[in-house]
Amino acid sequence: MIESGPQNTESPDPRQDTLAQIRAAGLQLIYQHGYEGMGLRLLASQAGIGQSTLYGHYATKQELLVDLICLHMNELLTSMRQAVPSSGAPLDRYLAFVHFHLVYHIRRRREVFICYSELRSLEPENYQRVTELRQQYEQALMEIIAEGMTTGVMRPGEARVAAYSILAMLSGITTWYNADGPLSEARICDEYTRLATAAVIDPLGIALAR
Amino acid sequence: MIESGPQNTESPDPRQDTLAQIRAAGLQLIYQHGYEGMGLRLLASQAGIGQSTLYGHYATKQELLVDLICLHMNELLTSMRQAVPSSGAPLDRYLAFVHFHLVYHIRRRREVFICYSELRSLEPENYQRVTELRQQYEQALMEIIAEGMTTGVMRPGEARVAAYSILAMLSGITTWYNADGPLSEARICDEYTRLATAAVIDPLGIALAR
Repeated sequence: MIESGPQNTESPDPRQDTLAQIRAAGLQLIYQHGYEGMGLRLLASQAGIGQSTLYGHYATKQELLVDLICLHMNELLTSMRQAVPSSGAPLDRYLAFVHFHLVYHIRRRREVFICYSELRSLEPENYQRVTELRQQYEQALMEIIAEGMTTGVMRPGEARVAAYSILAMLSGITTWYNADGPLSEARICDEYTRLATAAVIDPLGIALAR
Repeated sequence: MIESGPQNTESPDPRQDTLAQIRAAGLQLIYQHGYEGMGLRLLASQAGIGQSTLYGHYATKQELLVDLICLHMNELLTSMRQAVPSSGAPLDRYLAFVHFHLVYHIRRRREVFICYSELRSLEPENYQRVTELRQQYEQALMEIIAEGMTTGVMRPGEARVAAYSILAMLSGITTWYNADGPLSEARICDEYTRLATAAVIDPLGIALAR
């Protein structure tokens, strides 16, 4: 089961149901054992289907991996574009981006882990495809920061380095966040937001822009 | 070959030479193919030794993995303790830690990658051992930040969340740093240091502490 992805429990299309089962089983197996450690026989068994049915959807393991990663990247991009205004004050857009990234990453830990740790397992053409999607996402944050630097609400510097830094800082939440831990999700997001905002803002610029 | 680890080219002990060869080959193979994708036959061949010699050093793949990860974690801890003063002004110690972490991580990208991506491949007892080493490292930064918060040079907040955030931010440099890129190592470290410092400091507290 995907932890919090869209569920197709009432889908009228059995082929789509099977595809969802394969993806969910593949995600779990790659998360647990790594791409190289996932056998197609085990995958079919975990998805509750025969191997011939599996081959009807994915001819190779590589096809499944690139599908899972691109699916995640496309959902990430689409959701981000819905959550983050494409115009308006850079600081407001930055805060919207930070909040979106944190919550999305807390809820999709396995997808995120696979996207980072299995890039090495992608064949060159697929790696290129995934890299282009990831760059679109990074570019969105970079443009917000660059605009913040230009308008003076953010400290001048290399917008690209700042974007990479902030994305890594926020994504790191997936490695230790525990829903049963002493700090609530809201509290942790608030702490991260303060750190990520303090890292880039120019307090005087913000004061003058008010 | 390990990119920048100590080289034993003139070691008088052939057993140590062989061990170094196995570790270097294992590191490279796990980095490229993942732990599950590394076969012992290929490992022996890459290390330039026979399989029986390999078994004389490591009875299982798991032994090699935990050895590589613990070796890295112990070197990281030892080097950090040499580079970061254990007493003195928290902000000075913070800056020393940040600089140390950045430079160390730029130069040990493969070890760092394996430590993050192959934790799932460790058996429970080994996972526990590695976790304890990692916690010692995290604890060192956390104590510096907690002291900075207490003395007022850092913004009050959750020192643990701040430490995790900053470690993730800085470690992210390994995923994109390119020695042949347009920005020099010194310039990138400077940008990261500014971001990581701005994230935690309290400017008024620093002004008052001078």
